[in-house]
Order: sequence, then structure tokens, then C-alpha cells
Amino acid sequence: MNHRGPKPPELEVATIAAHLEGLEETIISRLIDRAQFSRNDPAYHAGESGFSGEDARSLFLIRLLYQEQMDARFGRFCVPEERPFYRDLPRPQRSAMLPDTGLRIDDFDCVNQMERIIQAYLDLLSRVCRAGDDGHYGSSVEHDVYAVQAIARRIHYGSLYVAESKFRDSPDIYTRLAARGDEQAIITSLTRREVEDRIVERIREKTAALQSTLNPLTRHAIDPEVIAAFYRDTIVPLTKKGEVAYLMNRKKQSRD
Amino acid sequence: MNHRGPKPPELEVATIAAHLEGLEETIISRLIDRAQFSRNDPAYHAGESGFSGEDARSLFLIRLLYQEQMDARFGRFCVPEERPFYRDLPRPQRSAMLPDTGLRIDDFDCVNQMERIIQAYLDLLSRVCRAGDDGHYGSSVEHDVYAVQAIARRIHYGSLYVAESKFRDSPDIYTRLAARGDEQAIITSLTRREVEDRIVERIREKTAALQSTLNPLTRHAIDPEVIAAFYRDTIVPLTKKGEVAYLMNRKKQSRD
Repeated sequence: MNHRGPKPPELEVATIAAHLEGLEETIISRLIDRAQFSRNDPAYHAGESGFSGEDARSLFLIRLLYQEQMDARFGRFCVPEERPFYRDLPRPQRSAMLPDTGLRIDDFDCVNQMERIIQAYLDLLSRVCRAGDDGHYGSSVEHDVYAVQAIARRIHYGSLYVAESKFRDSPDIYTRLAARGDEQAIITSLTRREVEDRIVERIREKTAALQSTLNPLTRHAIDPEVIAAFYRDTIVPLTKKGEVAYLMNRKKQSRD
Repeated sequence: MNHRGPKPPELEVATIAAHLEGLEETIISRLIDRAQFSRNDPAYHAGESGFSGEDARSLFLIRLLYQEQMDARFGRFCVPEERPFYRDLPRPQRSAMLPDTGLRIDDFDCVNQMERIIQAYLDLLSRVCRAGDDGHYGSSVEHDVYAVQAIARRIHYGSLYVAESKFRDSPDIYTRLAARGDEQAIITSLTRREVEDRIVERIREKTAALQSTLNPLTRHAIDPEVIAAFYRDTIVPLTKKGEVAYLMNRKKQSRD
């Protein structure tokens, strides 16, 4: 099959861009929520969780495990863009009724970037939160998990759907580059600097707007530049890394 | 002990009002997140969850149960303003290190309003979401639970701390009214109409501001009047109901 079929609407660039844009408010508001609490370093230290039966993990990693175990039972990880950090999670207790996504890959976890996302998120915390320790470890890690999930959804959704959409626009180019294993050339071909700059600028504006009602006496605000930089230096590059992984693992025989 | 001691800072009206104000953005942004998805009625019908091993509950109530079971292990319900919907939850696996809250009540669940909150929330859904069914039941109930928890935190925090603060300002009045069991007189004494009006107006403004960046092509916006009305007709009255419950159950012998 060498013809280029018409793209289904969910693979149109405009649809994907609109969905990615719609995820931005969620990411920003989750980070604003986390910023209510201090950095609370002990919540991220292995062996200091105070959680009975869990000696090796940090409180953050324990919370993430429990959340993913629950989410797995509800079928979250049947959705392509919802990738878990942990393996060996419980099986879903409900059947997900997924429509055909248009994606052509056997194992969505080929694009799973959770380890890198979590590392980058933990680095981000010291720029989002006040330094120090307010004792609210439980609330902090609860909000961490929601923020990480929102960030990861954006990265994985972009990785999968942008890559498939671009493949369908230029199947010959991406088939050739993937066959050569030329990751750098794929990244170059995927990059649209002016689009990326526009996203980063929009994040800066949205972060300011979403905090415009905050009373600084009651809630800690985040410097909009911090989240804009996180988009530029982490979210956008990890999305492109995921697109490369998708294109390298896309099923060879399917071109439509 | 009949003297009026100095109030600790966490019982000052200004501190409590600031904390309540800081919870508003979280409530509003949780509702905006839920509004991304359609009403999805089947997720609220008992017996239609498709969840194996759960025949009697709706998907929403199953999600709430799993969330509360997880949260209980992390010690959430040791915090006075975090009241659960379910009973017989697992014991905490970590010890909460709570400072003295200044509250004087033996059982925080005397102010537990979760049943009423959930009923009011489910009624609210049809005003927040688009009608219809988009199949995203799992995401819908996930966001429902986060929204309910944010709303409940506000109501229970207000119920406990506002009541204790007002008691300390006028112990003789509230002791007398509580002894008479005169709930209506307590409500009258607690009510500051101009403060309530100001809160409702602020909610209307914040809801508009928090949606000012939304692209209407990518996300469904909520009429600010809907959330303002929910504050006026549900959150404020349930908070006062909780304050009455607190004052009726406050330990008789403690006046400071």
C-alpha cells in the first residue's frame, strides 16, 4: 500500500494542535496548585517516607505507585497517551472502548518517557516552590502526581499523534530516515522553530493570566518564565524525542 | 475556665479568610477541567460501571471509593478538613504529625457533609458540562473526584475554623444558643451577608479570569454565573450548616 489515504480528522494537524493547546491550562494550574506548598525535600528522599511497609521509596514514588495501581484498574493505561512509570500494574477492571486512534505502533510504551519526565519535574520543583519545609508532605506529593500526569499526557499525546500525522504527510521521507536510523535528521525534519516559539510565548501569557486573580498574601505565585522555560527546555524536546521513538517503531507495512 | 484567651494565629478571622480564598482557584480550575468532557450520564448510574466485581455502584462512586481508600493510607483523613464519604477505610500507613489545630471537638465527622456535597455536585454537572456522551467516563469521574475533594475541603475547613474562631469571640452567646439547640439563631448569628456577597462576586470574577486564556475551539468554558451560584446556594450554606454542627458538638468545658 503506497498510496496516501485521506487523514482521519483526529490526525489533522489543526485537531492535534488544538488538543495540545487545551492541555496547557491543566498543566499550569496543577503547577500553581503544587506551589501552594514548600519544596518539602524529605518527601523525595528514599527511605524517609514514614510509610509502613515501604522502606526503599520516597513518599513521592509511593504515591505515584498507588495512583498508577488505582488508575490501571480503571483502564487509564489503555489510552495511548497515558503511559505509566511503573511496570506490573494491575489489569483493568473495566474494558476501555477505544475507537481506532489511527496510530500504527504495536507497543505504546516505545514512546514512554516517564523516567525523564519525572527527573525533569523533580528538578523543576525548586523553581516552582518556596524553599523550605512546611510539613505538608502528603498534599505535596498528591499534587506532584497530578502535575506529572498532566505533563506526561501532553508529551505522550504529542509524541504519538504529531508523529503519525507528519508521517502521513511525508511517508517516504520518514520511512527512509527511520530505516537509516537517523534520529537527528528526523528531529530536524520535525522541528518548526516558529511554532515552538509561539507555544512558549503562549505559556508565558497563560501562566500570568491564570495567576492574575491570586492574592499574593494567600498563595505563592510562580514566575511565568519558569513554566515557559520548562516547556521550551523539557516538554517540547521530550515530545520530539517521543516522536522519533514513534517513527522508529512504527509498523513498517502500514502507510495509511 | 471562663476567660477569653488570646487566639492562636490559625484561628484569626483574617488567616481563615485568606486560606478560604486561596482554595477558590483550585475549586474553579477543577470544575473547568471537568467541563472538558460531556455530562456522560452512564458514569453516574448504579450498575452501569462495567467494573468487574462492582455491580451496585456507579463508576463515579467506585472511583471515589478507590480514591478514598488510597488517600486513607496516606493519612488524608487525619486532617480535620479532609472528611471522607465512605466509612471503614484503611488505616493510615504513615503517621500524620499534626500541630494543635485549636479546634475543640472530639469527632471531626460531626461536621461531615459529604453526602450533601456529592448530591449538590452531581446536580451541578449538567450546568457545567455539555450535554451528551463522549465516552470519556474514566476521565470524567477522575476529575469529578478531584473537584468534589476541593469543594469539600473548603466547606469543612470553613465549618471547623470559622466556627471555632467565632466561638472564641463570643463564647457566652454560642454556648447559650447551642445549649438551647437553637440552630436557626446560630445561623443568624454567623451570617454576614455583605461578606457572602463579596465572596460570590469574587468567584464570578475569578471564573471569568481563569477562563480568559481558553481557546473556545479547544475547551468548553463554564458560565461564571454557574459557579458563583453554586457558591451562593451550596458552598456557603453547607459551610454554615457545618459551623452549626461544630458549635453543637463543641466540647462543653473548653473555652480557650
